[in-house]
Amino acid sequence: AELDGYLIPRADEHQGEYVPPSAERLKWLTGFSGSAGVAAITKKRAAVFVDGRYTVQVAQECDRAHFEFPGLARAKLVDWLIDAVPKGGTIGFDPWLHTAGEIARMTVSLNEKGLSLKPVPANLVDRAWGKGRPRPPEAPVVIQPLEFAGQAADEKIAAIQKKLAAERQFAAVLTLPDSIAWLLNIRGSDVPHNPVALAFAIVPATGKVELFIRPAKVSKDVRRSLEKQVRFFEPDAFSDRLTALKKAKRRVRVDRETAAFGITRRLGDKSVSAAADPCLALKAIKNAAEIAGAKAAHLRDGAAVSEFLCWLDGAVAGGSLDEIGAVQKLEEFRRDTGKLKDISFDTISGSGPNGAIVHYRVSEKTNRKLAHGELFLLDSGAQYPDGTTDITRTVAIGKPTAEMRQRFTLVLKGHIAVATACFPKGTRGIDIDPFARRALWAAGLDYDHGTGHGIGSYLSVHEGPQSISRAGMFPLEPGMICSNEPGYYKPGEYGIRIENVVLVTAAETPSGGERAMMEFETLTLAPIDRRLIEKSLLTAEDLTWLDGYHARVFRMLADLVAPATRAWLKAATATL
Amino acid sequence: AELDGYLIPRADEHQGEYVPPSAERLKWLTGFSGSAGVAAITKKRAAVFVDGRYTVQVAQECDRAHFEFPGLARAKLVDWLIDAVPKGGTIGFDPWLHTAGEIARMTVSLNEKGLSLKPVPANLVDRAWGKGRPRPPEAPVVIQPLEFAGQAADEKIAAIQKKLAAERQFAAVLTLPDSIAWLLNIRGSDVPHNPVALAFAIVPATGKVELFIRPAKVSKDVRRSLEKQVRFFEPDAFSDRLTALKKAKRRVRVDRETAAFGITRRLGDKSVSAAADPCLALKAIKNAAEIAGAKAAHLRDGAAVSEFLCWLDGAVAGGSLDEIGAVQKLEEFRRDTGKLKDISFDTISGSGPNGAIVHYRVSEKTNRKLAHGELFLLDSGAQYPDGTTDITRTVAIGKPTAEMRQRFTLVLKGHIAVATACFPKGTRGIDIDPFARRALWAAGLDYDHGTGHGIGSYLSVHEGPQSISRAGMFPLEPGMICSNEPGYYKPGEYGIRIENVVLVTAAETPSGGERAMMEFETLTLAPIDRRLIEKSLLTAEDLTWLDGYHARVFRMLADLVAPATRAWLKAATATL
Repeated sequence: AELDGYLIPRADEHQGEYVPPSAERLKWLTGFSGSAGVAAITKKRAAVFVDGRYTVQVAQECDRAHFEFPGLARAKLVDWLIDAVPKGGTIGFDPWLHTAGEIARMTVSLNEKGLSLKPVPANLVDRAWGKGRPRPPEAPVVIQPLEFAGQAADEKIAAIQKKLAAERQFAAVLTLPDSIAWLLNIRGSDVPHNPVALAFAIVPATGKVELFIRPAKVSKDVRRSLEKQVRFFEPDAFSDRLTALKKAKRRVRVDRETAAFGITRRLGDKSVSAAADPCLALKAIKNAAEIAGAKAAHLRDGAAVSEFLCWLDGAVAGGSLDEIGAVQKLEEFRRDTGKLKDISFDTISGSGPNGAIVHYRVSEKTNRKLAHGELFLLDSGAQYPDGTTDITRTVAIGKPTAEMRQRFTLVLKGHIAVATACFPKGTRGIDIDPFARRALWAAGLDYDHGTGHGIGSYLSVHEGPQSISRAGMFPLEPGMICSNEPGYYKPGEYGIRIENVVLVTAAETPSGGERAMMEFETLTLAPIDRRLIEKSLLTAEDLTWLDGYHARVFRMLADLVAPATRAWLKAATATL
Repeated sequence: AELDGYLIPRADEHQGEYVPPSAERLKWLTGFSGSAGVAAITKKRAAVFVDGRYTVQVAQECDRAHFEFPGLARAKLVDWLIDAVPKGGTIGFDPWLHTAGEIARMTVSLNEKGLSLKPVPANLVDRAWGKGRPRPPEAPVVIQPLEFAGQAADEKIAAIQKKLAAERQFAAVLTLPDSIAWLLNIRGSDVPHNPVALAFAIVPATGKVELFIRPAKVSKDVRRSLEKQVRFFEPDAFSDRLTALKKAKRRVRVDRETAAFGITRRLGDKSVSAAADPCLALKAIKNAAEIAGAKAAHLRDGAAVSEFLCWLDGAVAGGSLDEIGAVQKLEEFRRDTGKLKDISFDTISGSGPNGAIVHYRVSEKTNRKLAHGELFLLDSGAQYPDGTTDITRTVAIGKPTAEMRQRFTLVLKGHIAVATACFPKGTRGIDIDPFARRALWAAGLDYDHGTGHGIGSYLSVHEGPQSISRAGMFPLEPGMICSNEPGYYKPGEYGIRIENVVLVTAAETPSGGERAMMEFETLTLAPIDRRLIEKSLLTAEDLTWLDGYHARVFRMLADLVAPATRAWLKAATATL
């Protein structure tokens, strides 16, 4: 059957934020190296769709002679296809690289205009790429020790199986590598920055978990330690297993928003029981060992970041430090902890106007010096065996302007309003997000991203289901870990973001109070640049939090940093 | 066909908050007189389902020998039916008294358990009620003058028709009497407190509106003044018209959450284009005349309420004033304005512990004296030809306790946090609601209702689509009118609520600001009881708002109240 168009998304079979080189099809074809995008190719025209953060980059990386850049895929892809493909035309796609939900929504819009979508089993890019295409990764699976995981895999499996039984599902399909990593207490290194092993799993309501994974990844020892809970299969056996479930008329739980279309197609509508990945809600609530690990990781990381910030204050005097140099030095301090497994995402190191680009990633081309009178925004994180960190600090290089200080302080007020919030059971992230914005709103300002995302336990630095954002409808619960990162961005001039990681805890009910309350405990420990704070804008409560936080930062880190850093830290955390 | 059960909801064909006596089937059958509930009757058992506000009342009004009271319909009805009806059984319902959405959801849950729902054309209660059943109302339709409506009916109709054309719908069915009243600039008095005429309408994408209404309601003059826009039909013709649309294979817009199941059934799945009532979003944004009317109405109403509050302070000294006496006196002051059409809902007049019952309605049985040392909560509103009002004041009778003052002040802080909020385009009520709660949350307290609802323009005191609540996902826009009514309730002791009506306005962007902002303008004008305010809990900003509000209340009302009231008002609005 002939195709009139074909889609090439920046995605692998697991819909992760990071994909292995073997799945970098969009980059191979178009040159675009960003973390999100999709290309559409028709007989005469081709286009690459990216979101707001990549509009500059896509034009730099892709050849304008071959590609159009119409904008956001969600808004423009369908319209572009309607324009580029003749009525009655068929657009092909790889059923393993798009979610079931995505295909369902596109099908409705395209069918209305007389176009249709058609799954094409063998990927067309791979055919063209041929022998040049890297082999899929085969990094070894390692066991996450119980000391850090806090709960044995069989207990977790039992919890999922109870859920399946209650919802009368025969089994659940897991496609997210971090769900599988959490469930089985395993880690891997198939993709950058995210310590997971690419695999599929089927969790039956009773019996062993079926894990579909390349055998080369699993050593004899690992295999032996998992064999009570897990049956191992080749990835190729996955599709046949789905077909068998369909034939047996089993109800199989599938998350249509994360599972590939190919999976729901294999199972068929009658076998699919659409529901959220059952690991998500459980993984989000950290157990005591994971909380202890997160605290240890943030303490260690805070010391490294403080060493860096102290070093930075000296290094900028020379005037030759640039964004890449800062990234390298920060990673060096983290490596010096002796515990660094990886950074948890590509560091955002933005000086001056680069700081105003929310998802900026420095390259040789964009690399800027840290110049006096500018702000430097540094958003980074680490993967340690006991926890994942994520921190943003904005630092004044030389003397900041009054406007910079005013805006920094408004962002800080939002940060504090979140950090000090006390809220009852049932509160969702959407109910917290406005606190982060109120002070900015009062000044006619805002920022166009969420205030916080969930964070894994030595897993993905971005995880759900909760978020502190305009879309954060999932209730917060004690044990959840989120970021608290309001910001402000002045395009072409500077960016500000202040990010700490917070843990949701059960709060003591105040005297006279009636309800079970929750609050946030801030885990991140590193000074917030006092030179950027306009004290007159802070309330007494703001100051109490800030001085208290800084006192805690000094108390916790003083003995962990070098003597010279200690003196610097003392000053950097002095009461305001 | 035999039925194993039958449903009797407290609803009419229009799903309004108030129903005419002819639709009070639940009350006739069970005795329950509340504004929301449903009965289920099976061969052996019967139950009345009501929500939290009516659990006491249902037990007082209904005979325990005949009825069970299992709780909330949404949570319990299906489970009760599964228990009470044998497997394979059929439950009948009147297709005109349940929405399409409601029936669809119940069908899914019941089918899973082997039960089915069956629409029964002739209402079974009406058959039993027989000649005792009141005739449907035939109150005269009146024209809402353009002076108050602000926009001619043909302009409104054109706006709806443009929407239908854009969405390729042949016509829209309107079932909500306040949508029809808004669209055609008509008012009625078929139900209490809500100045609407019960009717259905079909708005075609081109041509005249078809209005299905009892002819006796429409005088020659009214008919003549509408005949350019409207074709009149008997209500009985409505069903046939739907059938004709189905036969002609027209796409008809129906709001499944407000339209009766009987309508979607007549049209059939292929003809129904499910979408919100197209009047809702337009009606919510008040035009200049409606805003001017709202301001005039609130000024008039504020004067009447202030007269009452002044009178109350004197009257309570005698110790004989009770809740009913207060209601009567307040209505007298409103009637004295010479403009009162009706009160806008049954007044909530709760003294002491009755104030803690959120939806309390005083009856001879529950009537309490206003006793010293207690709080008195009064939530009331008026229908004037230029606008609808809604105000709650909580008044100290004698000396309040320190706890009462603390809690009142926390509620006031929430009220002020909403009143002073400044927020960008796209902000929804859900983003404002947390501001109302933060001070209470910090004390371990909360309230279990929304913070604000939309308010009509001489129409329903409760209207959508916006709300300031945990569910308020509709964006706020300049011109919308909402209530701002945080509260606190201590069961068995007292209730507190402070309610003003606010108008969403475009705010001037502060100097240095970047975004188009909105804010609230408070329309309600009446003093907030200073005796209940614990000044030490207020911030400087809180005090600025409160003193400024009180100064405005005095300035605006001083010349509108009696001389004695003026002196009282001066003191009641003095700076704190």
